[in-house]
Amino acid sequence: MGEFDLIERFFKPPERSAVRDGLVKLGIGDDCALLQPQPHTQLAISSDMLVEGRHFFADVDPAALGHKALAVNLSDLAACGAKPLAFTLALALPKVNEAWLAAFSKGLFALADAQRCELIGGDTTRGPLNICITVFGEVPIVDGQSQALLRSGAKVGDDIYISGNLGEARLALEVLRGNVSMNDDVLARIRNRLERPTPRVALGLALRGIATSAIDVSDGLLGDLSHILRLSNIGATLDMEAFYTMQLVANSVMNTMVKGQFNHKNGQNHDSDLQNTLIGYILAGGDDYELVFTAPPVARAQVQAAASEAQTPVTRIGQIESAMGLRLMDASGALVQNQWRSFDHFS
Amino acid sequence: MGEFDLIERFFKPPERSAVRDGLVKLGIGDDCALLQPQPHTQLAISSDMLVEGRHFFADVDPAALGHKALAVNLSDLAACGAKPLAFTLALALPKVNEAWLAAFSKGLFALADAQRCELIGGDTTRGPLNICITVFGEVPIVDGQSQALLRSGAKVGDDIYISGNLGEARLALEVLRGNVSMNDDVLARIRNRLERPTPRVALGLALRGIATSAIDVSDGLLGDLSHILRLSNIGATLDMEAFYTMQLVANSVMNTMVKGQFNHKNGQNHDSDLQNTLIGYILAGGDDYELVFTAPPVARAQVQAAASEAQTPVTRIGQIESAMGLRLMDASGALVQNQWRSFDHFS
Repeated sequence: MGEFDLIERFFKPPERSAVRDGLVKLGIGDDCALLQPQPHTQLAISSDMLVEGRHFFADVDPAALGHKALAVNLSDLAACGAKPLAFTLALALPKVNEAWLAAFSKGLFALADAQRCELIGGDTTRGPLNICITVFGEVPIVDGQSQALLRSGAKVGDDIYISGNLGEARLALEVLRGNVSMNDDVLARIRNRLERPTPRVALGLALRGIATSAIDVSDGLLGDLSHILRLSNIGATLDMEAFYTMQLVANSVMNTMVKGQFNHKNGQNHDSDLQNTLIGYILAGGDDYELVFTAPPVARAQVQAAASEAQTPVTRIGQIESAMGLRLMDASGALVQNQWRSFDHFS
Repeated sequence: MGEFDLIERFFKPPERSAVRDGLVKLGIGDDCALLQPQPHTQLAISSDMLVEGRHFFADVDPAALGHKALAVNLSDLAACGAKPLAFTLALALPKVNEAWLAAFSKGLFALADAQRCELIGGDTTRGPLNICITVFGEVPIVDGQSQALLRSGAKVGDDIYISGNLGEARLALEVLRGNVSMNDDVLARIRNRLERPTPRVALGLALRGIATSAIDVSDGLLGDLSHILRLSNIGATLDMEAFYTMQLVANSVMNTMVKGQFNHKNGQNHDSDLQNTLIGYILAGGDDYELVFTAPPVARAQVQAAASEAQTPVTRIGQIESAMGLRLMDASGALVQNQWRSFDHFS
């Protein structure tokens, strides 16, 4: 199978060949795709590269990989409050495995179709497995003001919120790495958090005009929130009680695990060690693809209404302050030492 | 050095931090970049992935690689007649080598600055060396008509043109592969054609409203021209005399080579074998990054004026015909068998 047959067969099925009459003027098959954004909009653009052994295991379900490759990009659009429009896909493959490609393409397009995000071009080549997606979304301009949610807009006094829950993806990763053992039924459920993350697109859209800043949690909550603090030139204190009481993971495996189904590989299971490990996964585990965002206290009802509209739970976890830095506070108001570090590909 | 330091140091130097007040509303450092295209324009988008061992040798000069990674993307914009605006860069690196990164970044930005094409975002990760660039260009809409040059617009009777000359990049590749030997001085010159191709951006812009179709020659002339024929639903005959007489390579090494400075590794140097090899490099060598395009015979003066304006020579090499397929014709008008095949990553 040649390069052009491969594209035709797996990435340009007939039902997709009709170019949408709106924004996309020309899709796959020419030197460039042509987009014609609506008047009074901005185009939000983000690019993410996924590498075998780094972002996924070699034996990952290819349908899940197709989903995740697009999901992590859509998560960036969500963090900007941008509506998904289109994407390009560049793919390096060690060989042409038709079953693998069919499953990858199926997983990719299931999410693309659900989000009405159209594949408009890309590249295929031979090489170590590598998936690079660039995604395009739309942000309206209202009264001359872009409605994009930026990292730089947080204000002193703002509440800090997190969507959904945190830590399950990292927990699943540690089980797959063999560092933690767990009941298979439970693993099957949390494994989806790692391999098929849900980009919070609906929440990002609902938060336009309400949130003052936002970022998606990909490297870990503490690290990603720090980008908001740095770019907004402010600090924050997080209420650890919100994490310790596990309200963030009310429906998650972690509660069950705390009740005894969780075992470290070394056979030890000291409660405080366990809790510390879990809190680490929550605060700095990474791969969560939840949104952390800020909004003024007067907007609390609006934030909850946006969360309801997007059918995505959100939890208030702290406050923006003028004192620089990121502090963690326990229920008594005492500071807790931050011993957790978010993910960095090069350190 | 961490991921964010790496970006800050090599890809976001202070002099680039000021976001252009025009199209680019937000550059590197947030979840998304924000572009605001001018009214009455389309955005042309293309994505190319370069893999070590496939698109370049492991020991290639990193400055040349930085140049080439952007150049091959700009070549796609050129083929659409799009004006370069911005690009994203996703980069997988096996390790952080500061000298390598500094040189790569220098080569990349030298071309980006020359073409006024701004880096607006991307991704860095650890992994086998892989460079994925997505490039954005602008195409005007005039009287409701997009000025983009498409592959689908060639008409029966149109002339076929090629810019610059062909085959030198492939010749340099074969020398580097050890299949052909050559004087070092000569290699030094043609090696630039392989490692530092010149995207024909100025020519693409000058051909708007004149050319009926265009594509850039990356896989080889015959293969790339075939895309025009297929999408325009027509055929063509190429005049081999244009190639045999080497007018296309009037200033090139090939003329010299034909005069005896060229040697096959096996020590044989039959003139007809040699000529056949060279013609193969010209017709199907690949990596040329020239433009092949069509225009009606009435526009011959306009084509030459566009070529002068762009300071890029163009040569007429054939004719579009209603009979499907691609034919090669010698000086006597007899058909020549096509024994050359363009590059395909998967066959």
